[in-house]
Order: sequence, then structure tokens, then C-alpha cells
Amino acid sequence: MSSEDITRVAVSTVILSLKREPGDEHASVVMPLVRRVRDPFEGRWALPGGWLDVHEGLDAAASRTLAETTGLSPSYLEQLYAFGAVDRSPTRVVSIVYWALVRADEVEQAHPQENVAWFDTADLPPLAFDHDEIVGYALWRLRSKVGYSRIAHGLLPGEFTLAELREVYEAIFGRRLDPANFRRQVENSGNLIPTDRFRTGSHRPARLYRYNREVELADRGPLTHGLAPAPLPSESSRS
Amino acid sequence: MSSEDITRVAVSTVILSLKREPGDEHASVVMPLVRRVRDPFEGRWALPGGWLDVHEGLDAAASRTLAETTGLSPSYLEQLYAFGAVDRSPTRVVSIVYWALVRADEVEQAHPQENVAWFDTADLPPLAFDHDEIVGYALWRLRSKVGYSRIAHGLLPGEFTLAELREVYEAIFGRRLDPANFRRQVENSGNLIPTDRFRTGSHRPARLYRYNREVELADRGPLTHGLAPAPLPSESSRS
Repeated sequence: MSSEDITRVAVSTVILSLKREPGDEHASVVMPLVRRVRDPFEGRWALPGGWLDVHEGLDAAASRTLAETTGLSPSYLEQLYAFGAVDRSPTRVVSIVYWALVRADEVEQAHPQENVAWFDTADLPPLAFDHDEIVGYALWRLRSKVGYSRIAHGLLPGEFTLAELREVYEAIFGRRLDPANFRRQVENSGNLIPTDRFRTGSHRPARLYRYNREVELADRGPLTHGLAPAPLPSESSRS
Repeated sequence: MSSEDITRVAVSTVILSLKREPGDEHASVVMPLVRRVRDPFEGRWALPGGWLDVHEGLDAAASRTLAETTGLSPSYLEQLYAFGAVDRSPTRVVSIVYWALVRADEVEQAHPQENVAWFDTADLPPLAFDHDEIVGYALWRLRSKVGYSRIAHGLLPGEFTLAELREVYEAIFGRRLDPANFRRQVENSGNLIPTDRFRTGSHRPARLYRYNREVELADRGPLTHGLAPAPLPSESSRS
């Protein structure tokens, strides 16, 4: 088998977080990129990732390469999509792409690595390979998923104010939302449960909410044994 | 590079359709399987599929191998998930799995191939590799997706009665649904548009409906340039 006949498998990861610089009026959706230190695309920014080892599963490879490059260890990585266009790399590479949303405090706990920087997704440099397309797809999925799932949860602490939740949506959609309309919509959704606690500080106290964990999470991967596990084959065969 | 160090890439396809045998009271969700003619798992039933050619994209490989094995050529194959557990095959194989829903008339048009048979998903034989798990995941996704998208559309003609739509849901969920409740729910969903036409026959005339194409389809792949295309990178960078 010559090297031209080989398809190699890589994993890459799209990590999204929210960042609000001191003095910024609004939060931004940010992501870590790794500067490539070898060809192809030497010097360009690329998604964190690496080669799949023959002895490790896809999820493990995604976690390992993410930790090696960025120091991040999110509790849950979801498989996003497999990218396999013939011309996406000078050699034939199929990339299994994972993604995760991480809170700002998780980002701060990670040990910064060389050649890693965080970028505002609204102002990205040209990326290596087809990573522009991959990031575009991830951001599109993020926007389409917040509408029907609790995905914004990944960017928030366990309890949050409606203003904090609205800020997440505003950063994802890149536009301001009317506070009264937003409150009405989320209160009618059944997704949020008000707590007895309040955020106090420089503003008037704001009630803290949490997500209703009984609302089923749609569209998780098959290997998740969390809130919405895939059925065992014996269960599914009853359908 | 020895053969033990190679990870190979395969594609497999889960094709789901509805079937109602003469005399059956209810429709069933059925799928085609291919009997393996070589080891590993010789004689077992498996998903249609084959190896990714180094010169073809993932979508093309899925379409080609599906047509070669089953004669089916659905207009749209959606990528479902990449399965890559280390022990899922005697050699290391990552399978990119696609799926599609096809109407009964599309199934009838396909030229039957050797070693292919259609099975009721509620009564499947033990499958080769991890294909039991893959089918279980596909059926779980089908059940979770019909709740928030127009996915049942793939199993129906362009216009259909509410009874025909309900039959799709009943087959997917494996239980009867109350006709009056079902009618109320779909009429309130905004997904259906009543037409001026009626199905006539042995029963009283039933109004035909079609799906509202303006309702955005959630969760399509990034390479779809149909109803809900992923944004170009230049669009997404504005978010």
C-alpha cells in the first residue's frame, strides 16, 4: 500500500466559550485555535486536533488531542460531523470533528499552551485546511440548536439570571434581544425553573434560574449515558 | 506501516421505510440488510456499505455503496454519526454512517439485489459488527427527531392525509395515537398546510395536507444546499 492510497483519520475540536472583556458592552463567542508549526499550512491557525491512534476510540482521541494542544478538558465532547472531502488536505484525511461549549471559568483553569490563542468567532483569521467551513458549520449548528434545546446551558453556571441567559443568546445570534420578550419566551418554554436565590451586587437583586433537567435533551450522541441516553439495542427493537 | 497500524474508513447506511403488508392492521418501520458473504461475520446480516475509496468523498461513497448493495438511490443521505470504537471489528475500522428515509414507492422501484432482504426493525436478527448499536441509535434519533422536525416527510408523498401522517408516527413510536389529539397537535404546530384536495376511496374523503416548506429544517448536515443550508464562512463570521 503506497502512501497515496492511504486515508488517514484525524480528530479536531471546536471549543466555544463566551468572553466579555472589561469595558466591553457585550459578550462574544470565542474559540481557541492552534498555530501550525509545520507544513501544510505552516503558520496558519487551525482547530485543535491530531491523528487518531489505532488503539484509541474517537472520543478518547478528541479529548487527548484537545488537552495536549490547549490544556482544556471539558466534561463532555459531542461529535459534530465527519469531514472527508477529497481535496480538504494535500493528503487524504477524514477528520472526525467534536465540539463543546465551555464556561469562562473552565477556560481560565486551563494551563495555557504554546501556539494557542483565543479568537472572537466574528473576527477569525483565515484558517488551515477546510477549518473555515467546519467553524461555519459549528456556529450554524449552535444557532439552530439554541432554539430547541438547552445547549446554552454549557456556557452558563448551574444557576443564572435571565440577563445572563439573554447575554448568551445575544452573543450566539450576534444581535440584541428585547429583555421583556426574551423573559416571556423563556418563561413560557418550560425549560427554566426559578430558584429562591438572587444575584446581588451593583444592580438590584435578580432572581437565579436553573434548567429543568426533566426536559429531554435532543440530539446527543449515541455514546452518552446522561440525560437522554440512546436506547440499548434490546430496547430499540421493541419500537 | 504494518497492517496492524492501519485504520481503515468504511461507510454504512441505515435506510428506513414504512411497510404495510396486505392484511396488516398497522405499518412497520423496515430496513434493508445485506447478508455477509465473507469473514468476519460471514452469513450474518449487516448494514449496506463498503470501503471509502481514497478518491471519493464520504457522501459519494455512501451513495455508491448503497446503490451497489441494494439498488437504492435516495435523493438525500444525511450523515448520522461516525462509529470508531477500537473493538468494533477484528481490524481497526472507523465507519461513517449515513441514513435516509425512503418512501415505499422508492423501495419498489429499486432493483432487488442478491443477499439483500428487508426486515421489520422491531424484529431484527443479530447483526454483524456493532450494527445493532448503530441501528438502535438511528431509531432513537428518528423518534427524537420527529418531535421537532419534518423528518416524517421523508416517508410520505408530497401530499398526505392526517391519517397517513399519524400512521408514520405510530410506526415510529410503536404505539397507537389518539386521532383527535394528533390532529390538534399537528394543526397547532404550524408545520402543515391544508390543500384544497381530498383523498377519496373506500372511506369518506379526507383532506390532503403538505408540509410548510418555510419551517426551517433543523439539524441537516453542512453540505446540504437545500432548505436549511449551512452559512458560508463569510456569513458565519458575522455572528
